Amino acid sequence: MSLLVVGSVAIDSVETPFGKREEALGGSATYFSISASFFTRVKLVAVVGADFPKKYIQQLKKKAIALDGLEINTGKTFRWKGKYLDDLNTAHTIYTKLNAFESFSPKIPDEYKKSPYLFLANIDPDLQIAVLKKVHSPKLVACDSMNFWITNKPQALKKLLKKIDIFIINDSEAMLLSGENNMLKASKYIFSLGPKKIIIKRGDSGAILFAKTGAFFQTPAYLMEKIKDPTGAGDTFAGGFMGYLSKTNRLDEPGFRKAVIYGTIMASFCVQDFGPNRLIRLRKDEIAQRFNAYKNLVAHY
Amino acid sequence: MSLLVVGSVAIDSVETPFGKREEALGGSATYFSISASFFTRVKLVAVVGADFPKKYIQQLKKKAIALDGLEINTGKTFRWKGKYLDDLNTAHTIYTKLNAFESFSPKIPDEYKKSPYLFLANIDPDLQIAVLKKVHSPKLVACDSMNFWITNKPQALKKLLKKIDIFIINDSEAMLLSGENNMLKASKYIFSLGPKKIIIKRGDSGAILFAKTGAFFQTPAYLMEKIKDPTGAGDTFAGGFMGYLSKTNRLDEPGFRKAVIYGTIMASFCVQDFGPNRLIRLRKDEIAQRFNAYKNLVAHY
Repeated sequence: MSLLVVGSVAIDSVETPFGKREEALGGSATYFSISASFFTRVKLVAVVGADFPKKYIQQLKKKAIALDGLEINTGKTFRWKGKYLDDLNTAHTIYTKLNAFESFSPKIPDEYKKSPYLFLANIDPDLQIAVLKKVHSPKLVACDSMNFWITNKPQALKKLLKKIDIFIINDSEAMLLSGENNMLKASKYIFSLGPKKIIIKRGDSGAILFAKTGAFFQTPAYLMEKIKDPTGAGDTFAGGFMGYLSKTNRLDEPGFRKAVIYGTIMASFCVQDFGPNRLIRLRKDEIAQRFNAYKNLVAHY
Repeated sequence: MSLLVVGSVAIDSVETPFGKREEALGGSATYFSISASFFTRVKLVAVVGADFPKKYIQQLKKKAIALDGLEINTGKTFRWKGKYLDDLNTAHTIYTKLNAFESFSPKIPDEYKKSPYLFLANIDPDLQIAVLKKVHSPKLVACDSMNFWITNKPQALKKLLKKIDIFIINDSEAMLLSGENNMLKASKYIFSLGPKKIIIKRGDSGAILFAKTGAFFQTPAYLMEKIKDPTGAGDTFAGGFMGYLSKTNRLDEPGFRKAVIYGTIMASFCVQDFGPNRLIRLRKDEIAQRFNAYKNLVAHY
C-alpha cells in the first residue's frame, strides 16, 4: 500500500562532537521518506526553493520516492542549523530560516489523495489539518509535532489530535504537552486528546507503544558504540514504522510491535553518520541483519 | 544454593516528592537480602548498633534471612538521610553517619565460608577484598560499588574488580569509572579491569548485561505510573539477579538473562513504596504475575 508524507525538505547544517556538515540534505519528510522507501512506495509532498541542489533531488529519486508533490518555488529552501553537545540528546538550534516554507500551502496531487497510509510530519498543525482534509479517508494516519507547536499552537494541535490514529512524539514533547514526567501518566493525558495509539520515542532508552486500552509495548534502542549525528532519528523511526505497516497492511498488535522494531532499527542506522548519509547508502540486507541481531539482543529465551 | 551477602544494614530517612519516612530500615545488604530471600537462602553479614530496632531484626527473620553474621556492636547504627527531587533519578544526600560502620571488620561465620554465591554489596572496596579472601572459592562473586569509592579508593576498587565475576553498577557510576558516556565504550573499559560480566542499571531505562565477548542483553524497566521512593532499587535488582542464579544454579546465557529480568521485576516492586515496605509485604505469586506481565510487555511475537 502506498504511503503519503507531508512535511519539510530542508538544508541542514549540523555540528556534533564528532564533526560538522554544512548545507546537507535534511527535513522531517526527507528522513521519513528515505527510511520508509526501504519498505514501500513513498509519495512526498513538500516545498523547496530554487536553490535546492539537484543532487539532493537525485538522491530522493534513487530511492524511488515519488516527487510529483515536491513543489519548487522561486524562494530559498528552508534551512536549519543546530549543534549537539556531548550527551547528543538535545539539539541546540542556532537558526531556523523558514524561507520557502513560510508560505507553504501543501498541494496534494490528485493521484495521492487516495493514499491509504498518511504521515503528517512535523510542520504547523494548521497545515497538517489542511492536508488531512484533502486526503480521502485514509486507512491509517500518524503525525508528529514538536515543542514549538505544543507551546505556540496548542489549540490547532489538539484539533489535529482528535482526527489522527497514531501520535508519534519524543519524551520531552510528551512531557511538555501533558505536564507529566511519567510516560504512563503522559500517555493517559494525550489519549484524552484523541489519538488511538501513541508512540513515545525515548532516544537511547528505546520506544514505548501505548494503546488506549492501557496496554503498552516497550523495546530498547539498538545499543551502538558510535553515534555521529542524531538529527532525523525520530523521523527515520517514523519512516520505518509507517513503511513497515504500509508494506504489510497488518494493523494488529504483532504488526504494530514489529513496526516499532523496524522504526528502532532504521533510527539506529540514521545516527551512524551525518544527515541521511547512512540511510542513503543502506542496503536491505543490512536492515534484515540488524533486525535479527536486535532480536537476539533483547530475547528472553 | 545458598547466597552470602556482605554490606550495610542502616537506618534511612528519605524524602521524595511523594512523602517522607524517618528512621526506616535501609542499607544495601538489607534490600539485597529481602529481595533474594524470595528465591534462595540468604546469609547476611553486616553490623548495626545497639540502637537498631528489634522490629527490623524481626522483619529480616521473617524472610528466613540467616542473621548469625549480623554483628550488633555497642555504638549507633549507620544512618543515611537523602532527598529525591522531581525526576527521582538522583538521591541528594543530606547526611551519612557511618557510626558502627566506621570500624566494621566483617566476621564471616565459619559455616558461611563455603557459600557458593557471594554478593559484595556497596561498602569500602578494601572490606570487599577482605571478605573475598575469607570465603572459600565461591562459584560466583558479584559486587556493587558507588561514586564515592570510585573517586576516593580507585586502586582498591580496581584490585577488587580483578577478582570478581560480575560487576553490577548504575550508568552514572559506569561513566565516572570509565570516563565514557556511551555504555558500550564504558563496558569495554571496565572489562579491561577484570570482571567477566557487567550489568549496567539505567533506572527507568532498563538494564544491560554485557559479556566480555562483546555480546550483550538489553531489557527495559517495568514501566509504572506510581514510583514513591527509588531508594534501594539497585540493591533489590542485584538481590533478584543473584537470588535467581543461586536458586537455579544455572550459569548460562538463558539463566543470566532470566536473572536480569527477575532483578528488573524485584526493583519494580521496591520503588512502589517507601524503603523496603513493598518488598516486606510482597508475595511470591505477585512476582510470578508481574514476571508474566512483563514478558508480554516486551514480547516480539
